[in-house]
Parts: sequence; C-alpha cells; structure tokens
Amino acid sequence: MKLLEDRIVKDGIVGAGNVLKVDCFLNHQIDVALISELGKEFYRRFQGEGINKILTIEASGIGIACLTAPYFNVPVVFAKKSKTKNIAGDVYVSKVTSFTHGTTHDIIVSKKFLNKNDRVLIIDDFLARGQALLGLIDLVEAAGATVVGAGIVIEKSWQEGAKLIRERGIRLESLARIASMDVDTGVTFVKD
Amino acid sequence: MKLLEDRIVKDGIVGAGNVLKVDCFLNHQIDVALISELGKEFYRRFQGEGINKILTIEASGIGIACLTAPYFNVPVVFAKKSKTKNIAGDVYVSKVTSFTHGTTHDIIVSKKFLNKNDRVLIIDDFLARGQALLGLIDLVEAAGATVVGAGIVIEKSWQEGAKLIRERGIRLESLARIASMDVDTGVTFVKD
Repeated sequence: MKLLEDRIVKDGIVGAGNVLKVDCFLNHQIDVALISELGKEFYRRFQGEGINKILTIEASGIGIACLTAPYFNVPVVFAKKSKTKNIAGDVYVSKVTSFTHGTTHDIIVSKKFLNKNDRVLIIDDFLARGQALLGLIDLVEAAGATVVGAGIVIEKSWQEGAKLIRERGIRLESLARIASMDVDTGVTFVKD
Repeated sequence: MKLLEDRIVKDGIVGAGNVLKVDCFLNHQIDVALISELGKEFYRRFQGEGINKILTIEASGIGIACLTAPYFNVPVVFAKKSKTKNIAGDVYVSKVTSFTHGTTHDIIVSKKFLNKNDRVLIIDDFLARGQALLGLIDLVEAAGATVVGAGIVIEKSWQEGAKLIRERGIRLESLARIASMDVDTGVTFVKD
C-alpha cells in the first residue's frame, strides 16, 4: 500500500538489530487519519467474508483494530498479556514467546467473547517471527471459531512469520512488506 | 450521558470490592459504535478549546482515544507502562500507584510527542482514586504543555479521584458518574 510505504520511508527509523521505529505514527503516537485509511484498506481486502469480530492484542494492536472495525461494523476484542497464572476456566489461554524481550507469557481472552459461530479477522501492527499472531490463531481455534484472515500493518518478510501463518492455511494480508532493511540504506519493500 | 448509563445498567456487572465489570463493551470487548458516540460527546464538550493532541494510557484507554480523535482531527499519544528502570533522557516519566494491584510502576512518554505548544485532552476509561490520571497530568506538565481537560468514560464519584483532579484546576468531564454501587442493587448514578 503506497500511502503506508511512503510514510515508512519518510518517518520510519531503522535501528540496529532489525529494529524499525515507527513510533511517531503507529505504536506510540498514532496518526488516526492514516490508520483509518489502513482500516479502509483492510475492509477492501476482507469485505464479503462475513467477518463479525476483530481480534487483536494489547497494546499496539488496539488502535488499529478500533479504526478498522467501523468499516466492518463489528466489535473489537483484544487479548490481554497475562502476568498471573491462569487456571483453566473462563478464559482461553495461549503461550507467546517474545524473541525481542527473551520472555514467554500467556495471552488470554475471555470465553464470553469468542464462540464457535464467530468469523474472526485478526489485526496486528507487526509480523516478524509470527509468535503473537500464532498465539491469537490458537485462541480463535480453541473457541471453535473461524479465522477468516490476518491483517498486518508491517510485515518483515525475511523473517519466518509470514511463511508460518500461510502454512497454517491462514489468509494473510500485510499492507507493507519489507524485503530488507539497513541502518545506512533504509528500507526496501517486496516487489509485488 | 444517558446512552452510556443505560448500557452500564444493561451490561455492567457489579462485583465484590467495588468492581464494575464492563468488559463486554469497554475494556476487553469494545463496542466501537458505542465508543464512537462517546467520542462525539467528548468533542461536543471540548470543541473550540484548541486541542491538538489526545493523551491516554495503555491498554484500555487506547481504543477510546482512537475513536475520539477523528472528531478533533488530532493524533493520539499513549503513555506506556514501563517495566524497566528509566534513566532521565528521551522520555518523561511519572510514577503511578495501582491500589487494585498493590503496585507502583513508571509510566513514560517519549519527549518527541509532547512539547510546550501542545494543548492536550487526556482520555481514560475509569476514574476512581485518580492516580493514573494524575500521572498523565504530570507528564503533560513536565513537557510544559497545557492540559485542556480530562475526558473520562466512567467516574466512581464516591472515591477521591474526581476531587483531586478538580483541585489541580483541571476541567473534568465524566460521561457516567456513579454515586454508589452494590452487588445486590446495582449502580446508582449522580443526579446532575
């Protein structure tokens, strides 16, 4: 999506260790006009699929999901990162490993908010190794619901996440796909 | 605001220990159509005040802020709850005590996203003891920016937060003000 790629080139900062800082429009300060355009694009790609719920994960996914949901006229559910030990009961639980932080934590969603009739679009800001997204897919499948697809703002295409998601049979739509990036030369996008 | 009060009566669940669960429309599942109406109401109350930025705190505030910001046509900045020790530098830091969780943690915002010319509307889901909101006010004032006001979805009016905020000279607009609540009899609102 050219609007997004142009913004990444203009305002994204490539740091050491494969870090792309987009905190001035995506995940600390949020340019709601831009994100609303991304939401419209997710709608263009996924409309007609009978989506009745958008699932994301706190914190950075929430704004994107909330600015996408009005186009679909559906509620948002956000999974929570749990600090406490969860006993089986009123929540679905999945484990997510963060390679960035070197930690594993539970993500949870209340059983009240996912059920077998749901057709779910999963939204998140980044896809790299795919662990958070795989965790969200697990939550939907634990509920017996259907993952219609995953809408990602920025995919780091050289990492394994995109491949892992497609191997699970999940339709993946990433609005910007980065082929490579470098502190000196910046970002190169995948040519479609 | 009657629309919100009616929804709290219909779907809110009063639990032991002054807990009001509104996770089916506000802070786990998000009814974006309802929250967008709340955003419109914040705009009605604060328009004409030259607001150029909305500040909130992760995670529950983000959706509300993002559905309010389009009316003002301004960006959202969300403060982060920091798990790491912050050395003075590129972020403003404030301490917030959570009585619910019995913890104190730092909240931070990048200095890039608050500056002295900003006229800031602070948005959050709940106001009870007021510690999170006071922390957000501290961040704005540390930047030399102006707090135009605070927009809260649900105020627990019998707790000290609302009084503390008004004593700081901050304009406070809460869309639902709960006078008292009880597991058996439910919620009573403040009569205006």
